[in-house]
Amino acid sequence: MKGKFYGIGVGPGDPELITIKGVKILKSVDVVVYPESKVGKGSIALDIAKGYLRKDIEKINLHFPMIHDRKALEEKWQENAQIIKNKLNEGKDVAFLTLGDPTVYSTYMYIVPFLKQYKVEIETIPGITSFCSVASRVNIPLAEGKESFCILPLMKDEEKLEKMLDNFDNVIIMKPSHANQMLAEKLIDKGYEDKFVLISKCGTDKEKISYDIESLKDEKIPYLSTVIVKKGGIRDE
Amino acid sequence: MKGKFYGIGVGPGDPELITIKGVKILKSVDVVVYPESKVGKGSIALDIAKGYLRKDIEKINLHFPMIHDRKALEEKWQENAQIIKNKLNEGKDVAFLTLGDPTVYSTYMYIVPFLKQYKVEIETIPGITSFCSVASRVNIPLAEGKESFCILPLMKDEEKLEKMLDNFDNVIIMKPSHANQMLAEKLIDKGYEDKFVLISKCGTDKEKISYDIESLKDEKIPYLSTVIVKKGGIRDE
Repeated sequence: MKGKFYGIGVGPGDPELITIKGVKILKSVDVVVYPESKVGKGSIALDIAKGYLRKDIEKINLHFPMIHDRKALEEKWQENAQIIKNKLNEGKDVAFLTLGDPTVYSTYMYIVPFLKQYKVEIETIPGITSFCSVASRVNIPLAEGKESFCILPLMKDEEKLEKMLDNFDNVIIMKPSHANQMLAEKLIDKGYEDKFVLISKCGTDKEKISYDIESLKDEKIPYLSTVIVKKGGIRDE
Repeated sequence: MKGKFYGIGVGPGDPELITIKGVKILKSVDVVVYPESKVGKGSIALDIAKGYLRKDIEKINLHFPMIHDRKALEEKWQENAQIIKNKLNEGKDVAFLTLGDPTVYSTYMYIVPFLKQYKVEIETIPGITSFCSVASRVNIPLAEGKESFCILPLMKDEEKLEKMLDNFDNVIIMKPSHANQMLAEKLIDKGYEDKFVLISKCGTDKEKISYDIESLKDEKIPYLSTVIVKKGGIRDE
């Protein structure tokens, strides 16, 4: 009898922002696996989930290196999928932890196609995304009525950013630290310098919320930041 | 001593897809309010949450008519906000229930600006969005790597749809029943007729999942449907 494979979204950071279903499964599984970009770096997802895990649970870190060689990457994914498969073949249920939601930029989804091939039973439990969490924190809508919105992990691609700003009512920018000065200039250019909010380290004791374009120009904005641009304007609290 | 106002995302349908935090608050509040588009129509959000509510809880339905007259709408919102304010002034904590997430197309966000004016304490608890839930159900990513994605409530606006399909790797279409035949034609035009999935009534016993363009042309696809277009292709289960 094979075990079952779960992907569990542990949400944006607060352990109480996991679903009832997610917690039930976390309490029941035999093995948790969590991704690490560097071996030994640790896992925020594991930190969030640890209070719900059985004391005797087996924890396995899977290495997902930050490399661009597609072939080497796929080999690594297959290797990781094989580790999970072996545990499932022992009859153990395995949960793969993902920060936020498993369907939004997670490493979990790189593993799933291999496990589908192995004819394993898979269940994905959705989680609270960082962008929903951040919008809730400042009590503003990501979209209302007939508005469209898009989610964009920021890169140094001016043309792409411009297209998004031109075509959408609301633009949610993830990882703005990748090109925040470019973003600030573009918002000024377009006349949106007072139509955004920058939230960093949401829900932690280092949280910062700013509506000021100067803060977006800052050289050192944290990696865990989100910018919400609302062309219709933002009503400050 | 004034009460506190909560907006609570009850998720897409399964009562176990509410967060631990959401459930804690649902169990503690004195009053729940829920929106109705027609008086007496009932509320899916209330149906989802009811198992968590205190037996003696006060339930108030707020009427949010589906009208286009902006002035009449705003008067209605203010009227509804006033009903909530009165309860808060009695020292009662009030939770406003929203399907999915409170920041994504919810009526809750129409009320919040008024309650901000009244200087009421507000806390919004994020919820699982329908699009994350649907993507989890079929075990496919909404976005991975450097992909961008957008969310679009479908309207009979061909030009807009075309722009989205041209500019994004992945397009998530909510309420496809508003113009599903137009959508099907556009997908065929663009050569994406085998690069989408249609999920209707996700998580219920009437759930349907289809990768077939013919099903998208159907005259009667349910209101509670979502289409995920992935230009890179969809790996069927």
